[in-house]
Amino acid sequence: MTPNIMVVSFNPQRHTYKSIKERKVFSINVPSINLVTRTDYCALVSGKNSYKSEIFELFYGENKNVPMIQECPICAECKVIQEVSLADHELVIGEVINNYIDESCLTGKHPDIQKIKPFAFTMPDNHYWANGETLGKARGVGKNYKIT
Amino acid sequence: MTPNIMVVSFNPQRHTYKSIKERKVFSINVPSINLVTRTDYCALVSGKNSYKSEIFELFYGENKNVPMIQECPICAECKVIQEVSLADHELVIGEVINNYIDESCLTGKHPDIQKIKPFAFTMPDNHYWANGETLGKARGVGKNYKIT
Repeated sequence: MTPNIMVVSFNPQRHTYKSIKERKVFSINVPSINLVTRTDYCALVSGKNSYKSEIFELFYGENKNVPMIQECPICAECKVIQEVSLADHELVIGEVINNYIDESCLTGKHPDIQKIKPFAFTMPDNHYWANGETLGKARGVGKNYKIT
Repeated sequence: MTPNIMVVSFNPQRHTYKSIKERKVFSINVPSINLVTRTDYCALVSGKNSYKSEIFELFYGENKNVPMIQECPICAECKVIQEVSLADHELVIGEVINNYIDESCLTGKHPDIQKIKPFAFTMPDNHYWANGETLGKARGVGKNYKIT
């Protein structure tokens, strides 16, 4: 099966990047809106000077160097397969080794955004945003469109 | 000034990718929720067999090979600076040559997501989603959090 790929970018001066560079693994953890306070707290402190690992409960999958967050409904355990140096950021490309999902966030066999309740972040206004209402089905709402 | 970078991935069999490969330029156009029908129609037809250029009104910036969409509140004109071949997708890394924004979508000097009204797309349930309510200020809502 074709592997799932995650692409993330980092300021190479950050502690997070230095840790990934050393271990060649990382995780992607999707927080729900009820975790916004704790997620924001993670942005306010550096892992260099504090124990971020006490903010959430951690768990481990296949690779014991990849902590993941128990409270997050979706976690992806990744290994670095490639890096690209850009102007002032490093692009880290990871292959997903395993996915972990809270079963209460599935509808049938698939993740359901209305149960996961993720949030977005915008800059430079620096705000968090919940997901909103549905606008309809993709490959559906445009079916009756006619070029005029 | 450090250039802004956009990273996009393509199935290399698609007409869109073949066109970018040839021209070494592309544009990113952010549609508002009122454009969801026309945007979805673009997903239903291939540029190989139809004139997608008739769905929206186009305009050109610096590079005459980069059409952009007049109706979209934000458009980024990009040139390809690097490519990375992944398992079944091509990662295309572009430097932004110019940004175009509808002035009615600014608050002060900055883009405002509540005026832009973009939407998200989820798979495999295939739905479009509006942006929702704000959850508060980043580097703000977590300020009073204390690890217990």
